[in-house]
Amino acid sequence: MNDLFLRACRREPVERPPVWMMRQAGRYLPEYRAVRERADFLTMVGTPELAVEVTLQPVDRLGVDAAIIFSDILVVPQAMGMALSVEDGVGPRFHQPLRTNSDFDGLRDLVPDHDLRYVLDALRLARRELDGRVPLIGFAGAPWTLMSYMVEGQGSKSFTLAKRLLVEDPVRAHDLLARLARAVGAFLAAQVSAGAQAVQLFDSWAGALGPRDFREFALPYLAEAVRLARAAGAPVIAFAPGAGWALEELAGVTGADVIGVDWQTDAADARRRLMAYPAALQGNLDPAWLYAGPDEIRRRTRDMLQAFGGRGHIANLGHGIHPDVPVAHARAFVDAVREWRVP
Amino acid sequence: MNDLFLRACRREPVERPPVWMMRQAGRYLPEYRAVRERADFLTMVGTPELAVEVTLQPVDRLGVDAAIIFSDILVVPQAMGMALSVEDGVGPRFHQPLRTNSDFDGLRDLVPDHDLRYVLDALRLARRELDGRVPLIGFAGAPWTLMSYMVEGQGSKSFTLAKRLLVEDPVRAHDLLARLARAVGAFLAAQVSAGAQAVQLFDSWAGALGPRDFREFALPYLAEAVRLARAAGAPVIAFAPGAGWALEELAGVTGADVIGVDWQTDAADARRRLMAYPAALQGNLDPAWLYAGPDEIRRRTRDMLQAFGGRGHIANLGHGIHPDVPVAHARAFVDAVREWRVP
Repeated sequence: MNDLFLRACRREPVERPPVWMMRQAGRYLPEYRAVRERADFLTMVGTPELAVEVTLQPVDRLGVDAAIIFSDILVVPQAMGMALSVEDGVGPRFHQPLRTNSDFDGLRDLVPDHDLRYVLDALRLARRELDGRVPLIGFAGAPWTLMSYMVEGQGSKSFTLAKRLLVEDPVRAHDLLARLARAVGAFLAAQVSAGAQAVQLFDSWAGALGPRDFREFALPYLAEAVRLARAAGAPVIAFAPGAGWALEELAGVTGADVIGVDWQTDAADARRRLMAYPAALQGNLDPAWLYAGPDEIRRRTRDMLQAFGGRGHIANLGHGIHPDVPVAHARAFVDAVREWRVP
Repeated sequence: MNDLFLRACRREPVERPPVWMMRQAGRYLPEYRAVRERADFLTMVGTPELAVEVTLQPVDRLGVDAAIIFSDILVVPQAMGMALSVEDGVGPRFHQPLRTNSDFDGLRDLVPDHDLRYVLDALRLARRELDGRVPLIGFAGAPWTLMSYMVEGQGSKSFTLAKRLLVEDPVRAHDLLARLARAVGAFLAAQVSAGAQAVQLFDSWAGALGPRDFREFALPYLAEAVRLARAAGAPVIAFAPGAGWALEELAGVTGADVIGVDWQTDAADARRRLMAYPAALQGNLDPAWLYAGPDEIRRRTRDMLQAFGGRGHIANLGHGIHPDVPVAHARAFVDAVREWRVP
């Protein structure tokens, strides 16, 4: 059993950092595209056999040290009653974003074992099929990020509708964020019960908030979700891309076991700033650097590993892998980590 | 003559910080929309009388302490030979983005007095019409930001095409960036000759680069453009939104007179970090906060002024004003600054 990833989460000694890639079960893999040709994105997410098939692909193909269940952060609002579609080129979209009182009041409370059973079934199946080869990671979207999608209806450049809600009706925003924190926390705990050996919280739109709003509307609910997930007994990774200034607060306030570092943040700087905190770090190669040639990728990956220093570090990209990266380039990144040794 | 803005640029004593708003000549103003109904965006940019009409509107309506010429950062690549259109809802778009060798080789060198004479004419006319009421600001896009638009063809979430060029063909990227730095520097110097009393460089997509790429591909060319502009004798404002981590390098490396602070950055933190540098600061109220009621806007504006401390500070938003903000809310922001006094 390769338990490098779990040891690094706990900051135990390792001979080299473990490596996996955000969005590693994705379109850059030809075998993923083959599955995707037979089924649309939401069918893949909703069908445990298909989700598990693509979950295992990067383990087989690249030899990464952890598998992350193939799913989507928007399954939570979907299970709370919001109709979701994912179109090619457009991305995920809620047909009826939260706008009126009755939109908000119509949201159901989440019962993970019932409403998101297909994700839990996928985790159980993935654990069986992995058969101890590498640990399995579960995940969920953080409350602020889910709320912004639910209010905007889709991704946005400036998130003005969601941010407008924060200043126009902060009470309603807090109410929704608290509900989402409970839902996400319960979902992550259920994922751990179903076999996830670690879970990651993605606050993907953290960068849409300035410090004051982040502290009021994102951080406390991220912390509550982390608390509920940690109570289930597995390490929790908190990742708030675009909010590199907040690393210390993420480590100090959320109590997450691992803090994700985005590619905008200098690796050596992140390490120095979090030296005094008990968290491990995960990241942070710029996914656009995988467009470089394999030799250059190896050089930059080694620089990154050096900057993090090896101990308490999980090697990863600083954001999801781009769909048009050649597999050989992804492999160069993974191999460079696997060949490296803690000095 | 209200020279508050110019005194603050030079960090001279002021009784209160001057105030203006990025994109203050914009769609939130009914009188702007009235002009916009008669002419499309690029016609407004290209017709000095129309550009000057909207340039003066916020001075008349809100009593801001500076006017900024109505124009667009993409006039530079357009003048270098790239066909540009601006469509409602889509934003600016180059019909033939830079992709092949011949696309790059086909770019013309910029002769500002000839190729961008309409901008210089607008500045001359605006100075006459302002008649000393408030200073007039010129502007340009920074080299990296212009290059990303030229390569992508339009705005992007992840700028993968532009970033791909940086790793796949850094020599070509450096060559284009150097040409753009010369073009932008010459353009800003020409704007000063035509009457601009200060100029601002917008590196709007600075946040698309991690520290290493920012230092290699953005900062040196921003610095070169600042140097050329400063040689013309007017203060230069450098603004690199999304790269809050780089404030010290912006101040130390570019030698800009004023450093713009984006809304993601904590104001007190920015002030503390730049205390040892000779630059003034400009910013940084979150434009989304203008959705709050006027009383709340005043409170948050006063908090922001307090955090910057009054001296060497130009009050502004931390990004352009959103088009759907009520004029009364913009006025509450401006009034809150005008009523405040340096402690």
